[in-house]
Amino acid sequence: MWQEVILLKDEKLRQLRQKMCLAGADCVVVYTEDDHAGEYVGAHDQVRAFLTGFTGSAGVAVVSRDKAALFTDGRYFLQAEKQLLGTGFELMRQGEPGVPTPEEYACSILEQGQTLFCDSTTLSCTKAQKLMELLDKKQAKLIWNRDIVGDMWTQRPPRPVTPAWELQPNYSGETRKHKLQRVRTAMKDASCDMMAISELNDVAWLLNLRANDVPNTPVLSSFALVYPDKVDLYCGQGAIDANLAQKLNTDSVFIKNYNDLYIEAEQINGLCVLADPQYTNYKLYSCLCKNNQVLLQSCPIQRMKAQKNAIEQDNMRRCHEIEGLAFCRFEKQLKQLIQEGNRVTEWDAVELLEKYRKMSMDYIEPSFSSIVGYGENAAVIHYAPTVDDAALIKPKGFLLCDVGGQYLLGTTDMTRTLAMGPVTQEMKKRYTQVLMGMIDLAEAVYTPNTTGGALDILARGPLFKEQKNFRHGTGHGVGYLLSVHEGPNNIRPGNQEVFLPGMITSDEPGFYQDGEYGIRLEILLLSKEYGESEYGRFMCFEPLTLAPFEREAICKEMLSAKQLVWLNSYHQQVYNRLSPLMNQEEKAWLAEWCQKI
Amino acid sequence: MWQEVILLKDEKLRQLRQKMCLAGADCVVVYTEDDHAGEYVGAHDQVRAFLTGFTGSAGVAVVSRDKAALFTDGRYFLQAEKQLLGTGFELMRQGEPGVPTPEEYACSILEQGQTLFCDSTTLSCTKAQKLMELLDKKQAKLIWNRDIVGDMWTQRPPRPVTPAWELQPNYSGETRKHKLQRVRTAMKDASCDMMAISELNDVAWLLNLRANDVPNTPVLSSFALVYPDKVDLYCGQGAIDANLAQKLNTDSVFIKNYNDLYIEAEQINGLCVLADPQYTNYKLYSCLCKNNQVLLQSCPIQRMKAQKNAIEQDNMRRCHEIEGLAFCRFEKQLKQLIQEGNRVTEWDAVELLEKYRKMSMDYIEPSFSSIVGYGENAAVIHYAPTVDDAALIKPKGFLLCDVGGQYLLGTTDMTRTLAMGPVTQEMKKRYTQVLMGMIDLAEAVYTPNTTGGALDILARGPLFKEQKNFRHGTGHGVGYLLSVHEGPNNIRPGNQEVFLPGMITSDEPGFYQDGEYGIRLEILLLSKEYGESEYGRFMCFEPLTLAPFEREAICKEMLSAKQLVWLNSYHQQVYNRLSPLMNQEEKAWLAEWCQKI
Repeated sequence: MWQEVILLKDEKLRQLRQKMCLAGADCVVVYTEDDHAGEYVGAHDQVRAFLTGFTGSAGVAVVSRDKAALFTDGRYFLQAEKQLLGTGFELMRQGEPGVPTPEEYACSILEQGQTLFCDSTTLSCTKAQKLMELLDKKQAKLIWNRDIVGDMWTQRPPRPVTPAWELQPNYSGETRKHKLQRVRTAMKDASCDMMAISELNDVAWLLNLRANDVPNTPVLSSFALVYPDKVDLYCGQGAIDANLAQKLNTDSVFIKNYNDLYIEAEQINGLCVLADPQYTNYKLYSCLCKNNQVLLQSCPIQRMKAQKNAIEQDNMRRCHEIEGLAFCRFEKQLKQLIQEGNRVTEWDAVELLEKYRKMSMDYIEPSFSSIVGYGENAAVIHYAPTVDDAALIKPKGFLLCDVGGQYLLGTTDMTRTLAMGPVTQEMKKRYTQVLMGMIDLAEAVYTPNTTGGALDILARGPLFKEQKNFRHGTGHGVGYLLSVHEGPNNIRPGNQEVFLPGMITSDEPGFYQDGEYGIRLEILLLSKEYGESEYGRFMCFEPLTLAPFEREAICKEMLSAKQLVWLNSYHQQVYNRLSPLMNQEEKAWLAEWCQKI
Repeated sequence: MWQEVILLKDEKLRQLRQKMCLAGADCVVVYTEDDHAGEYVGAHDQVRAFLTGFTGSAGVAVVSRDKAALFTDGRYFLQAEKQLLGTGFELMRQGEPGVPTPEEYACSILEQGQTLFCDSTTLSCTKAQKLMELLDKKQAKLIWNRDIVGDMWTQRPPRPVTPAWELQPNYSGETRKHKLQRVRTAMKDASCDMMAISELNDVAWLLNLRANDVPNTPVLSSFALVYPDKVDLYCGQGAIDANLAQKLNTDSVFIKNYNDLYIEAEQINGLCVLADPQYTNYKLYSCLCKNNQVLLQSCPIQRMKAQKNAIEQDNMRRCHEIEGLAFCRFEKQLKQLIQEGNRVTEWDAVELLEKYRKMSMDYIEPSFSSIVGYGENAAVIHYAPTVDDAALIKPKGFLLCDVGGQYLLGTTDMTRTLAMGPVTQEMKKRYTQVLMGMIDLAEAVYTPNTTGGALDILARGPLFKEQKNFRHGTGHGVGYLLSVHEGPNNIRPGNQEVFLPGMITSDEPGFYQDGEYGIRLEILLLSKEYGESEYGRFMCFEPLTLAPFEREAICKEMLSAKQLVWLNSYHQQVYNRLSPLMNQEEKAWLAEWCQKI
């Protein structure tokens, strides 16, 4: 059985090289992205996984006549090693010293005048530009209109088409008509006649549409071409029913067939088109370039949708009450099961939380694969248990739970690290340092031009003093019933995006002791006005996430007086807002966990 | 008498307009800078002051046939209003809403095809580029090779020529030869054949030369053209004596006449020349461009001289002991004089400090005009008393002392705000908030890629929480026996320069209550290694400045435990390092001011 699998795996590479010979391809680069440069892609777009057998969410394959390499980052080294076994692909560990980028590698194995094939629907303009610069140096050629690997995939699943539905104004807080007005004003400011939107979250936000085409993110696989007087929405046939189509028509949004996009884009003529280079794929760009002037600049919707309106903010607050309630029930039950000596795996914990979430009518799905990591698994930053591969939770040490949900009322993302029993003094010290950084960032007051890069030090400061750190960003933007990772706001060193009122950003410092334990604490922060004085406006953060911290792991004496005040007042708020939703037993549990420290 | 002065003042504008008619100039722009784009300029280069009567350190005059305006910033509004009275110049308040830049203003009053005159030796390449872009839009012409105002100045003082002297290796820590080697390596990396250095501090650092041509900054008015095998040093005749010239020749540094620079630069041929656009004046650039390729990029010396070597660091530590000693003696004596009811003005205080500084053989001069501001004067950020205009110090309220000195052992810059008697609770609260910010920044531990912009929040945080702020940068780089304001390191929002080991940066938050009082606290911080762990290198700051803070103005209960530890340990260090230099009475005084809080 094992032998057979290996043969099959190796067979694909052999087949591809045959096809390369016939097509005159000296090298093929296979990216992970779909036509929309999305973070999560559906089964139809798993071309790289089909070729290599590696199923991680990030990776690039490069194949020449005699070389085959799969590039991925530190999150996936172990998984890739296992999955690439026998496939003929060599693992290239991105981020390790001396490892080139896939593009550099591809160009290094090409000889002068040779030809590189790449499916340009998976290549954003930004990436395409870099690749072509490298190819130019080598005087090599790019053939971008052939999906040579996709052509091999006879059993390829179809593109998903799920029914789209409309997000009502009591959820979206702004009508489609009004959003279109704002976007058209921005188009006018940019002196463009049409805007081509490829980013699925941008389309969903603009048209108040949601669907189920992509896991964890309730968006519709589609493109929108926005003109001053109409919108052409390219989506899968059947995605939009007659009723919805009619409503969209009222706002001059017309339904087109997804498969006609590239052909029709070629026929557009004489316009100045705005397209976001990060999300517009090179094929669409090339089609639009034929008869138009294309302005590559970031889509104005990015910033619009990041600034949540008053209704979205209010919904988000309620959404976090629902998620907080589910999390508390989960934490209470899980701790009890473990203390009673039950056999519970990380996957059981994932399912337990899911059970409590489903008690809410508003709940849709997880906003990402739940990261529930016990012991040393928690030190693997993007670890996620599966039904087949999950560790047993023991009545000691830390369980890291980084979880989030999609609700009609918004999107959540939170992390708590729970003590499942005794934890060492060292673990408590690190927990407290992570908590201190999280609080210092949450408490920040800042001026309107403050960037994410300017506040990062607050979250890392307590760890830096001990020469410790965490190897990930401090925070990312979060969508409203959209992607849990949303730009442009972001907290990490060097980030240059300013916080605008209504933006929601995570605050999630951590500490990871490889092979032993991992700690991460995360709350979502809403940027809002703090006040105005003779020095102008000031802003601050409102914590949205509602769940107690692990009092068993907090060293009170390490906290400053201010940090302690913040923590106690936060716990008071958690109790005040969640307890009305709870039964007596749950209330008593929460009261204990929210007691003044 | 008064009438006569006004007539004289007005007369200059009349004369200039006559000359403009003859020369065909429709508009003249007069900048403050000298040929080296320096911050401080000598009497010879005060062309703008000659024309307008306004003597502030920053300002631009714009004159057309019927308009005359003087642009300056908030520091100088009051002074400019007084000095411009009757001159025919209108004051343009830079930074106020709706006020254009001088260049925008000049272009707005020019008509299409008209001609603007500007002395290009006072115009950096960076500024010239912006000016020409604006002129192009107006299809107006720039005549840059005529100093039409300078030509009017019959009594113009000569360019200063003071004897240059050599900074010995026990002060510089690195020989000229070794510095030249490093610079030539950088030139090679930039693929250039010659580097034209205009910035006086860069020349002084590179050649280990100092002089007295510019107030407060012991530099030599000169240009250096660095070739792979020699250096041509253009300086005033007589600046370098035969002995020093011979020494310089040994390192292939050859003396040229300052006045020949532009003529000889035109004759240089076929080279790739590196010039810093911020400091290279447009005339020199134009001369070099005739027969060479000129690379405009920042001079590699900027970063080299910012990173003080071990000997410079050690000298700086000693230098701060000497300055700290003088400051303590000054503070002790001043407080006593005031308490005893003596009549003491701000200027008397300046002279008192100077008296104590001169007790050190190493002392040369102040590194900037001492800012000693009493009461409401301290709220004027760049206030400096003069012999004729100084307020009386009363036995109550705050006296702000921002002072610095040039020593053979380095350059200092410090601010203490002293309570001259009772201060209100509000003043104490603000003093403590400023101190908290200063300490939080001084205590920072950071990773090697951290920028000034990433740490600024630490100094402002405590004020932000109260919706307060200060309208100046948090910190600037400081030279070694060179300019007290030195790039590239800098702490202010948005700054993108990383801290490198050996850089010295000021940490000087403040709070200013207009018309009432001002508080600023400043220490210099040396960037150095903190340690290395599995997360890489970490850096921290070492405070260089040594003088107690005003214990009478500190609200202990506002400080966090950590801030208090820092403060007490800082005061302990001040005592340990200064007391050995003091007599018994001084020691007793210092012991009291450095007592544990």
